[in-house]
Amino acid sequence: MTCKSLTELIECFKMLPGVGQKTAERYAYTILEKDSDKIADFSQALIDCKTKIKACLCCGNFSEQELCEICSNERRNHHLICVVQSPKDIVAMEKTNEYNGVYHVLNGCISPSKGIMPSDLTIDELMNRVDEHTEEVILAINMTIEGETTALYLDKLLKDKKCNVTRIARGLPMGAQLDYADELTLINSLEGRKRMGDNK
Amino acid sequence: MTCKSLTELIECFKMLPGVGQKTAERYAYTILEKDSDKIADFSQALIDCKTKIKACLCCGNFSEQELCEICSNERRNHHLICVVQSPKDIVAMEKTNEYNGVYHVLNGCISPSKGIMPSDLTIDELMNRVDEHTEEVILAINMTIEGETTALYLDKLLKDKKCNVTRIARGLPMGAQLDYADELTLINSLEGRKRMGDNK
Repeated sequence: MTCKSLTELIECFKMLPGVGQKTAERYAYTILEKDSDKIADFSQALIDCKTKIKACLCCGNFSEQELCEICSNERRNHHLICVVQSPKDIVAMEKTNEYNGVYHVLNGCISPSKGIMPSDLTIDELMNRVDEHTEEVILAINMTIEGETTALYLDKLLKDKKCNVTRIARGLPMGAQLDYADELTLINSLEGRKRMGDNK
Repeated sequence: MTCKSLTELIECFKMLPGVGQKTAERYAYTILEKDSDKIADFSQALIDCKTKIKACLCCGNFSEQELCEICSNERRNHHLICVVQSPKDIVAMEKTNEYNGVYHVLNGCISPSKGIMPSDLTIDELMNRVDEHTEEVILAINMTIEGETTALYLDKLLKDKKCNVTRIARGLPMGAQLDYADELTLINSLEGRKRMGDNK
């Protein structure tokens, strides 16, 4: 099968995560069946996404303006900063509808094995943002070795500031079964135990 | 999270089969991380696919020319016609590297419940193609009730022509286990049994 434009589209779809030859073919055939208008919109959406979306000058979140919707929202608590690795994490946090502070995107986490050093992250920017009005910095960084290292590093740097520095809780995720949990998770879960009824 | 161009791209990805909100988001974030050149190519590939690819005038296969690569290939046996439901099936057949004839795309199969009648398919075109030189018509239509109905219908119509009409074999697929096979498949598999060593 060698229809050039089809092969090219299939190759394009294969750059998406988890998409192999079969899935890419399936996607391409679907495209062929759709209306031209929809495909034109799709094509334009790809370009728009790349050209219009930039990093928020303050927190590093995805934004079409200089400041993202969260940073420019005056009803949010700007004295509460949640530090995350990437803008995707902000989306996850926002879905909880439980957080009313602002964010700071690190753009990764410290990982000497991948050659990512503290200077590659937006740590200086974070230090400049944290001032005497900042009440709390929540470290919502992944529970990986690199994430833990980064959290420890940031905690050390933030010691000189007057704000509280907290780390999101370790423990068993909802729906988890004890017998399937790994030991570290169980240890964290035990250590972080709370008196019944204290959960809120 | 309300970055308009991102939301729009996510919606576009959701038109792909099996792609829900989560996967569409993942795809969109991947796009944001790619080089602008690659995204421009992707965007163009979508448009090209829709504008350049047409149905082959002879067999109905995807093609950028009037005749598809298979129909315009003189080294293929044009007296052997394999009837399939859609161009995707041609891709699957071609991957076997076992077939050297040409194809005919029906564009579906007879399904009164979905309102697809014989006149909606390219059956007239097939009848016009089959002539005194045609040696065999292979019905490689899906093994579904609609597919079987369509195969029976075509067999009846092709009775007047001098060519052989065959149906691809029913049986157990490779890797199948007898205890998991359904009864119809097992019956077909028994009825279609071959003397050992006859398989090629």
